[in-house]
This record gives sequence, C-alpha cells and structure tokens, in this order.
Amino acid sequence: MPSDRPLAERLLEGDRRALARAITLVENEDPEGYEVVRAVYPKTGRAAIMGLTGAPGAGKSTLIGALTKLRRAQGREVGVLSIDPSSPFTHGAVLGDRIRLSEHFLDPGVFIRSMATRGALGGLAEAALQTALLMDAAGKDDVFLETVGVGQAEVDIIDHADTVVLALMPGSGDSIQALKAGVMEIPDVIVVNKKDHPLTDTMVREIRGVLSLGPKQAWRVPVLTTEASRGEGVEDLADAIDKHRAHIREEGTLEERRRRNLRNEVLELATVRLRRKLHEQLDDPEVEKLLDEVVKRRLDPASAASKLLERET
Amino acid sequence: MPSDRPLAERLLEGDRRALARAITLVENEDPEGYEVVRAVYPKTGRAAIMGLTGAPGAGKSTLIGALTKLRRAQGREVGVLSIDPSSPFTHGAVLGDRIRLSEHFLDPGVFIRSMATRGALGGLAEAALQTALLMDAAGKDDVFLETVGVGQAEVDIIDHADTVVLALMPGSGDSIQALKAGVMEIPDVIVVNKKDHPLTDTMVREIRGVLSLGPKQAWRVPVLTTEASRGEGVEDLADAIDKHRAHIREEGTLEERRRRNLRNEVLELATVRLRRKLHEQLDDPEVEKLLDEVVKRRLDPASAASKLLERET
Repeated sequence: MPSDRPLAERLLEGDRRALARAITLVENEDPEGYEVVRAVYPKTGRAAIMGLTGAPGAGKSTLIGALTKLRRAQGREVGVLSIDPSSPFTHGAVLGDRIRLSEHFLDPGVFIRSMATRGALGGLAEAALQTALLMDAAGKDDVFLETVGVGQAEVDIIDHADTVVLALMPGSGDSIQALKAGVMEIPDVIVVNKKDHPLTDTMVREIRGVLSLGPKQAWRVPVLTTEASRGEGVEDLADAIDKHRAHIREEGTLEERRRRNLRNEVLELATVRLRRKLHEQLDDPEVEKLLDEVVKRRLDPASAASKLLERET
Repeated sequence: MPSDRPLAERLLEGDRRALARAITLVENEDPEGYEVVRAVYPKTGRAAIMGLTGAPGAGKSTLIGALTKLRRAQGREVGVLSIDPSSPFTHGAVLGDRIRLSEHFLDPGVFIRSMATRGALGGLAEAALQTALLMDAAGKDDVFLETVGVGQAEVDIIDHADTVVLALMPGSGDSIQALKAGVMEIPDVIVVNKKDHPLTDTMVREIRGVLSLGPKQAWRVPVLTTEASRGEGVEDLADAIDKHRAHIREEGTLEERRRRNLRNEVLELATVRLRRKLHEQLDDPEVEKLLDEVVKRRLDPASAASKLLERET
C-alpha cells in the first residue's frame, strides 16, 4: 500500500496524489506540510520556473495552456500554479479561465493547481513558493506560476521565478504606463497575445520604445506576439524563455537570482509569522483598549505600535 | 524668535517651515519626528483626507491641481502628498507632473510635498500617514494623497483616506479588468479624465457595467468625466467627494473607516519595525551562513525562517 509510505517519499517518485496532498497541507499552513517541504528540499532546484503576469483578460491562461501543450510534446512534465483573485464581481469569469487548461486535466504529466488570493497576512507568496518547491521535487521539468496584476503580493510570487513573462493585450495602456513609470518591474520577456488585433503592431512599437529608454542590459527583453488560442507564436515564446534561462545560467545570474529570491523568501516567511503573531494579539482586551486610545486620538499610532511590540517580547 | 519654540507648537499654528521640517523628520524616520506626531496627534482628525489613485498618465496631478484651485476658491487650505515611483526610465516625466502643481507653489494656503517610493521595507505607507497627520494638525482642511498604481504599498497609503478616487483615462483597459477581477478594490468615486476623447463614453458605460455587477451598496459609486486641464467637471468631482464624506459621516462609517485604518496603521507600523529588525540581522555572519545553507538546498526556507526568529527572541 503506497499510502503507508511517507508522503515525501511518494512525492519524490512523482505520485500525483502525494503532491496534491502535500500542497493542500502547505496551503492550510499545516506543520506536516512544512515537514514534507523540509524533507524534499534537497532534491529541488532542477525545474525551470516561469512566472507569468499581466492584467486580467490578457490571455494568461490560454498562453499557459499552449505552453503546456508544447512542453508536453517536448516530453517535459509540467506543473501549473494559478493564483486567482477573489473578485466581488465575477467568480465565474475566473473559473472560466481555468477551463482553458481543461484539455490537460487528464494528462498524468501535467499537474494543475489554483489558489485564491487571501487576506493581508501575506501567506499566499509563502504557500506559492512552497508549492513550486513541491512540484519541482515531484519531477516537474517546468513550473508555471500565473498571477494577475502588478501588486506587491503578485510581485513576491513572481519573484520566485527564473524567468518572468509579462502578457499584454492591445489596449493595455495602463500596464505600459506602469512599466514606464517604474511601478512595474521590467520583465524578462514580453508577449502581446492578440496577434491579429489592429492595434498590436502599434503596441509592440510602443513597448519597444519604452524599453529603449531604459538602462542597457546584457539581456535584451524580447517583445513577441502570439495568438495562443491557435498556438501561434507559442514556440517562439517557449524559445525566448529557454534562451533567457540559458542566458542567466551562462552569466551566472541564475544562481544569483535564486540566491536573492531564497533570501527574500526566508525574510518574508519570518515577517509573515511575526505579523500573524501580532494579529493574534488583537483579540486581547488590553490591545483592544490600546487601539481605542488611538481612535480617540489620545495615543498616536507609532506609540501604540511600540506598546504592542513591548508586549510581544 | 519662533525657532526657539517647540516644533509641534509652531506646526499647530500652521507654520509652513515647521510643517516642512516635521515631515522631513518623519520621512527620515528620525525619533524627533515621531515626537512631533505624538504631540500634535490629539489635534488631528479634522481634515478631509482624499486619496487619488490610478495608472501613470491618468492625469492625477492635473486633477489635484484643479481640485486645489477649487478648494482654495472655497477658502479652504490644502495639503498635497504625492508618492512618486522611482522609474528606471524617465524621472523627468514624473517630475514634469509635479510642475502642473506649480501655480500653487507660492500660495501660503497650499502645502505640497512629494515622496519617492522606497525599498521593500514598507516604510512609505508609514511616513505617508504620519505626513497626513502633520498636515491635518497644521490646519489643512483638505489633504490629498496621490499614488500611482494598484500595488499593496499604494493601497496601504490610500487606505488612510476618507474618500478614495480612482482616475482613469480612455484606454485604461487594464484597470477596468483589474477592478472587475477584484484585483483592485472598489473606489468611492471614479473619474475619467479625458472628457473629449472619442472613447470616453464607451469607457464610462463599461465602468458602470462592471459596477452594476457588484454587490448593492448604500453608496452608489459615481462615474464622472473631467477635463482637468481646463477645469471642466472638477466642481462635480469636488461635490462627489463632499457627498461621499457626508454619506459616510451620516452612516457612521467615517468613524468605522478611520477606526479600521488606524488599527491597520498600528499593525503596519509594528510589522515594519519587526521587519527592519530582521533586516538588520542580515549582516550578521551567522545569518549569512544560515542563508547559504538555504541556497545550497541543505536547509529549507521555512526552517531557516524559524531559526532566524529564534535568534530574535
């Protein structure tokens, strides 16, 4: 009976159910989940981790679906982690996106998982990295992390990737402006996913214009066009991702990038735990009284924070 | 000599230089700055705090300029805090935005300050709130907080506002998608700042369509159009802001909102300090060794975080 053997052992053999179970544990912040990650961690670092970001509607799921198909044809195993925003408007639309991946649901070489964005405690980036590590350990050659938007939480997730791809569609004026203003970090690859749209060429020129203003880098960010629903341009995109990875590996920056990411991850994990401990104090009547003083303008926020921290130690 | 008197005292009298000095202290995280905030805090809570957000290029600075002009004509004093992203591309463009406020630079009833976004330590939201409190204490009737984008840092800043206004321009497809997907929180007022653009009407309809899908709220988010460079529609915008404030005051939600914001602020201040303490440890050779173990895949990130926290206590 395989279930009698340790979860970590089964996961390392690529057992799907073991992987699914371990991710659930990590997502629920179950200590057993961290145990599994701890056990398999020495076996990680092999997968190519690609982070895909972009506004909702940019066609990220379709791109991931097309890339998955291509990687499978190349004989590679794929893990996908999609981060779903919790919309007050249309849960349906987001779930609809997932359906575009459905042709891969039954393929044993593809493992798909989605997580909903959570509250402000910042546990998501933590769970996302742990999940990427588990997929890596389970033998996925490619791990795709898909997130929406340009918020800090998304950036934290994307930061775990070796290669960051930004998906834009014609009309993504805000994203281009955000890129230009430095609100959004410069990705490694940019893809405009509506090859046939009349505004696509203008858009590509505009993006190249913005990029040309930036500092000269050894890696020139390619701007590609795809029509992912028909698989067009997807091979070029996969090539660009491979080339970027080869580039940073040759330059020694893959090592450096991973070092920086892991270092940030450790700090982030520590901060999340500290914040959680602070939040747990909020139910304490004494802390409630402290906050009341702030609301009544008798105690300023910074002094209240100091008092809160004094309690902590 | 006024400079012999305490900074807080002079600030409460509306002394500009005292206000400027206090903000610099707060921005530099000088303990004296917190002292001033502590001293003036009981006198705060009077100003109407408006947060304006939106992608770069949406015309936020022009809108703030026009609103400032209007408020001055109404006999109100205005404080403006602009958060500038640090762009790798065009510092010039952002500084150019500031110039749109230049007609108010010499008006003693207007106080303008800008801050650059900083690193990941999260000190910006902290400094921004302290600055808003100082402007409030110095007698500004209106405090405008201007930030770019929809990242968490920006949301944290905007969260200090009584009323949040989202500025969009025709072509802001990404922002509308972000709103729809729940990546962006629903603002209190939406303004499309290109009245004459051929796509403006379509855009307004689109936004109303998205809003109509949402949960029914007591406050119906108005969608306005302006041409701020000519002052058109700005009166309606100011009216909408006033109405929103009157609404939340009547409903009792102004109190509730401020309570929630101050509570979050205390937690955020405490978290920032804890994170800073963690960062200070990074130079420690022992911690460096710990991180090395993680990079070499001998120690997993979560265990390293635990060890880091153990050192802390």
